[in-house]
Amino acid sequence: MKVTVINTGGTFNKRYNPIKGQLEVPTDNIALDKIIAACHNIEFEIKNIVSKDSLDMTDEDRVEICEAIKNSANDKIIIIHGTDTVHLTSALIKEQINDKKIVFTGAMVPMSIEEVEATMNFSLALGFLSATVENGTYIAMHGVVVDSSKLVKNRQLGQFLITK
Amino acid sequence: MKVTVINTGGTFNKRYNPIKGQLEVPTDNIALDKIIAACHNIEFEIKNIVSKDSLDMTDEDRVEICEAIKNSANDKIIIIHGTDTVHLTSALIKEQINDKKIVFTGAMVPMSIEEVEATMNFSLALGFLSATVENGTYIAMHGVVVDSSKLVKNRQLGQFLITK
Amino acid sequence: MKVTVINTGGTFNKRYNPIKGQLEVPTDNIALDKIIAACHNIEFEIKNIVSKDSLDMTDEDRVEICEAIKNSANDKIIIIHGTDTVHLTSALIKEQINDKKIVFTGAMVPMSIEEVEATMNFSLALGFLSATVENGTYIAMHGVVVDSSKLVKNRQLGQFLITK
Amino acid sequence: MKVTVINTGGTFNKRYNPIKGQLEVPTDNIALDKIIAACHNIEFEIKNIVSKDSLDMTDEDRVEICEAIKNSANDKIIIIHGTDTVHLTSALIKEQINDKKIVFTGAMVPMSIEEVEATMNFSLALGFLSATVENGTYIAMHGVVVDSSKLVKNRQLGQFLITK
Repeated sequence: MKVTVINTGGTFNKRYNPIKGQLEVPTDNIALDKIIAACHNIEFEIKNIVSKDSLDMTDEDRVEICEAIKNSANDKIIIIHGTDTVHLTSALIKEQINDKKIVFTGAMVPMSIEEVEATMNFSLALGFLSATVENGTYIAMHGVVVDSSKLVKNRQLGQFLITK
Repeated sequence: MKVTVINTGGTFNKRYNPIKGQLEVPTDNIALDKIIAACHNIEFEIKNIVSKDSLDMTDEDRVEICEAIKNSANDKIIIIHGTDTVHLTSALIKEQINDKKIVFTGAMVPMSIEEVEATMNFSLALGFLSATVENGTYIAMHGVVVDSSKLVKNRQLGQFLITK
Repeated sequence: MKVTVINTGGTFNKRYNPIKGQLEVPTDNIALDKIIAACHNIEFEIKNIVSKDSLDMTDEDRVEICEAIKNSANDKIIIIHGTDTVHLTSALIKEQINDKKIVFTGAMVPMSIEEVEATMNFSLALGFLSATVENGTYIAMHGVVVDSSKLVKNRQLGQFLITK
Repeated sequence: MKVTVINTGGTFNKRYNPIKGQLEVPTDNIALDKIIAACHNIEFEIKNIVSKDSLDMTDEDRVEICEAIKNSANDKIIIIHGTDTVHLTSALIKEQINDKKIVFTGAMVPMSIEEVEATMNFSLALGFLSATVENGTYIAMHGVVVDSSKLVKNRQLGQFLITK
């Protein structure tokens, strides 16, 4: 299986900078690399673009993400994205692209602080793409992979929950 | 989604006992619970049976696992199993049960020592069951979920690899 | 041995709040408790006061810390403090108190993100107090325990280094 | 400060070998290196000898450790040692060498499994050597550094406790 990962930043990637005393969104894939090291049966193509907290994403950033997906020769795509505006980006992609299997994922807690949640969310996407799935825009968070319009961040609980 | 997890032991669950100075297969689900804590959209039914290193599993143990699957009212089942004889148990189950979606998983390194691999393997199974999949016996390890006969442990590399 | 720990906050204690998406200085001792769980030969008295990033500490906060030390019946005291202004607080304490063994410590990276540095710094203080030491104001960071005026934070490197 | 570390193996250093499915005492200093990376004020000299579970140590091994200490030009020495027979080795050293400050340490749980205890024990030794201490043979475990004859492993609790 060949999977294209478009890493756009967000909490998933954040790391503590001891000199500045704060968490930063890096432009590298260190968080992702630690997960991928346990994958021995997938050919990954990784693109790192935008590299922002999703609260700071602009319309231009979303166009860039959209173009990156359109330009991918591969039709199995995982997008790592900040949790605050993943609903906006995925809605845009859903509207514009319908010939690929696109799975958004991310994390509420940085991989560098706690490895279980980020690893789970990314691996849910991989497991879903191992099945025969229809083209569409999906989201993989907190135990499930569903159509991207059907899983919503509950900001009080800090959890992505399936809408009724 | 409702998922039945049958936890049979294996490296996935091993924990260090400082009094005895060795790793043990516990009869509890502590390793699993840490992963499940990040799942907010699944109703889990968890059964802990056998609780062995898979090298020590007997024919009777495999019959017990088979019966547990048959007796499950739910048709989405994840089996946590030791990696050394998962091919034997899954072959038996594949032969005897064909009305459920059964996904074997496990780990090369205990969850208590390194969280990424065990979390990935279990989450691959969850992500796969999120898709519409046919009844069958599958294995979720090291990046993919495939028919249980098609992923084999390479004992030199310590990796499960897809057979050609 | 009986040791009084005055936990005033700082990076040592910071934890990620997934709801707010940022690191916070908690008012509890969770970071400390994890270290203390490995101590079986010390009677600890723990006081949690101030609970601030040390950049936010006021003169009043420093007076409160000073009073807490003066009021301690025990003469072996460890102060957990933010690294940015530990030189100011320790200089004040050094001036005002000379009948106790007071060891400042802290961390450049939160215990909740990386356990080695915070555990080392606190344990250096404990090891130092196990020896017969003179009354004074000391600092325990990055491998050594010395007079508090002799170890200075290098802000470019993010390291406490002994002054020549 | 210059410190000589003689790493003889034991639980402190153990690592899981996924190919063999068991914990091994390596002949490298990876466990130690992770702690030393947080020390910016000490010049370390590190010798790796014996590399055994201390239950497997022979009289010859103890002679080798004794010679290594005698041959050290430096008088501040930390010995990393397995917990099961550290009382035997330290008693021998105490009898034979009295012109150095020798601190035995180790861990009940491998550094590769849990970082707090091993980091604490080693750092206790460093903090103790930061003070002005008399020549002698000491042990640094579980919160304190005392004469090596006064801290004994309680095998039921898995804790080193000060003898009355």
